Amino acid sequence: MMSERKIIMVPGPVNYEPSVLRELSTPTPSHMSLDFAKAFKKAMEKLRELLNVDGKVFILAGGGTLAMEVAAVNVLNRNSKALVVSTGVFGDRFADLLTSYGVNVVKLSCKWGEAASLDDVKALLEAEGCDALFLTHVDTSTSVLNNVKELCRVAKDMGCLTVVDGVAATGGIEENMAGWGIDVLVTASQKALGVPPGLAIIALSDDALQLLRSNDRRLPCYYASLHNWLPIVESFEQGVPAYFSTPPVNLIQALSVSLELIFEEGLKKVYERHALVGKAFREALKKIGLKLIPVSEEICAPTLTAVWYPDGVVDREFRGLLSSLGVVVAGGLGPYSERYFRIGHMGRVGFTDIVSTIAAVEIALSKCGFEVKLGEGVAAAQDLLLKAGLTPLFY
Amino acid sequence: MMSERKIIMVPGPVNYEPSVLRELSTPTPSHMSLDFAKAFKKAMEKLRELLNVDGKVFILAGGGTLAMEVAAVNVLNRNSKALVVSTGVFGDRFADLLTSYGVNVVKLSCKWGEAASLDDVKALLEAEGCDALFLTHVDTSTSVLNNVKELCRVAKDMGCLTVVDGVAATGGIEENMAGWGIDVLVTASQKALGVPPGLAIIALSDDALQLLRSNDRRLPCYYASLHNWLPIVESFEQGVPAYFSTPPVNLIQALSVSLELIFEEGLKKVYERHALVGKAFREALKKIGLKLIPVSEEICAPTLTAVWYPDGVVDREFRGLLSSLGVVVAGGLGPYSERYFRIGHMGRVGFTDIVSTIAAVEIALSKCGFEVKLGEGVAAAQDLLLKAGLTPLFY
Repeated sequence: MMSERKIIMVPGPVNYEPSVLRELSTPTPSHMSLDFAKAFKKAMEKLRELLNVDGKVFILAGGGTLAMEVAAVNVLNRNSKALVVSTGVFGDRFADLLTSYGVNVVKLSCKWGEAASLDDVKALLEAEGCDALFLTHVDTSTSVLNNVKELCRVAKDMGCLTVVDGVAATGGIEENMAGWGIDVLVTASQKALGVPPGLAIIALSDDALQLLRSNDRRLPCYYASLHNWLPIVESFEQGVPAYFSTPPVNLIQALSVSLELIFEEGLKKVYERHALVGKAFREALKKIGLKLIPVSEEICAPTLTAVWYPDGVVDREFRGLLSSLGVVVAGGLGPYSERYFRIGHMGRVGFTDIVSTIAAVEIALSKCGFEVKLGEGVAAAQDLLLKAGLTPLFY
Repeated sequence: MMSERKIIMVPGPVNYEPSVLRELSTPTPSHMSLDFAKAFKKAMEKLRELLNVDGKVFILAGGGTLAMEVAAVNVLNRNSKALVVSTGVFGDRFADLLTSYGVNVVKLSCKWGEAASLDDVKALLEAEGCDALFLTHVDTSTSVLNNVKELCRVAKDMGCLTVVDGVAATGGIEENMAGWGIDVLVTASQKALGVPPGLAIIALSDDALQLLRSNDRRLPCYYASLHNWLPIVESFEQGVPAYFSTPPVNLIQALSVSLELIFEEGLKKVYERHALVGKAFREALKKIGLKLIPVSEEICAPTLTAVWYPDGVVDREFRGLLSSLGVVVAGGLGPYSERYFRIGHMGRVGFTDIVSTIAAVEIALSKCGFEVKLGEGVAAAQDLLLKAGLTPLFY
């Protein structure tokens, strides 16, 4: 029998901290208890600080896709015109989602592996007169990083509402909502926030909140309606339990523990660590002779890396070998799904995760017939990490 | 400092089995792994068996309210006319939800504490020509039990689609979808199914599935669209992972463990146990001199009991005292929220939970100035349980 003990290097779920998992298994208090209210309040406060948002944070039971939908239905209406910038499968999803609600969508599809160009976005916003910009911070399908700061600033200055999908970024890359002009940010628990899947998170700036309050032609919704959740959030912010639909108590308590770990380490250090770990993986993979999907280093996400297979390497065989070595990585998504794989490196990825993943990739590739000088990729990562003086990676 | 150790006698969350909580804290496998696929498949299979449904079961990250919405948006359209039978806050919620989508709603509001009458429902269905009947099995606000079997059979025979909210019933009371003519049943994890909150569960009969497939004018939705989830469910049913939105892996694995416990005990025994435990609470509460909200014994839910406060007993004081004794019960919901309390008794409620809750209620009432002969309620429960020969309650 194969061991259950594996390292999970997919772009979410990740390897969660034991203290977070222990919190998850705490006997569930009543969702109307002061104990839970304390944890809920803390989770909201820490998320607001993490995102530097002046408005509100909503935490719902749901997936990241629900979070995207919550953003859309609450701040748009049927007359809205939205520019959706797509850098992969999840940008496309934003467009599909909006289209399914009858929103007028202008879609800017970036080439596979490329990020959005500021000029293109600016030109389209001007030419099309869009009310809103929908943008993916890191598209989990391509590992392409968009320059959210620059793009949102420009859109916001043009009077556009800005909506950012931070699912594969939040907690691993800075997202400064007030500073960068992000009105709505949606994310999920299971990636760099370090909590098992099941939480949809939606942050609204004060501007977006005002829009929510005045949006009497918003798209049809009920569970996703922030009008239903706003009084609940406001009550829990005062430490007073309130009820609309039973919240996912254990996951929210686990989130509050995970956010505590993040702030204990310090946001700056957490982001630097993600940048370093991402770089270590990229250096190693390039040294091995692999080609990354993002076309240039500046648009490589610090949170995951999508890598083309060399000719002749078969996805199923490669990932099967990796798994037998105790390392789980993800296959591709979208049009090239069989032709690449993805390594997630978000949350508390440690030294052992990095070197063992790279060593396993080397072995698996060589077994798949690709010529690899064993240890070369590992050495590249070791070298970088040693120079950065950041071993061990925590504290 | 007060102990965190309390017994949770609210109508969900409940006191979860340690083995379920341990499963929840298992390091999360990839949502695309065969290990997870096995657990997901098992959870779906066991739910289908539990509900005796010939169609499909969908398990989403979400609350019970999302499950209600999923039912509505997938099988109705804007031309639908629905009869909503309300026996409390959650029946009202069904009506609000449908109205917010522009569905034509006929609402039958039962008096507080009363169940739906078959004649009234039949007459309304005939007079109004409704396409669908929406019904709450047990309304968590009133603890009123509807005769789902009878009502659905009649509606179904009239060509109506039947949708049942089983949130406060599933796993504690029989729900025989194929046998009773239930087309759609919605429920959630945190009550008698014995898993912490965060799972919305939707079961569709074959008739409902056919309707889903042909419903090209369905209400707007995306995350809640079962068209998006159907291929995923079909794949996992074959044990093959597939992806739409990352599922709540840990909660689903915990659900599979909890369902195993339910089937190990045996459905018949589980339902008998809930009936007995409910009766024990009611006998005790009546002996103490309290009046239940359901107006007659036949419509008292086996899963929770809503109880009027005697004159002069103040909710906050009463429940505060109870909590200081280590017992957490719920306040009221809806128009009489300050005037009654609710004891949840679903999932694996044991002998100790029953007698200690009743003893605490006796003490708290007497401290609140209501005359109680201490031990009388406890004795009534002991007597009933002893006669039933079911101590200990498990195995």
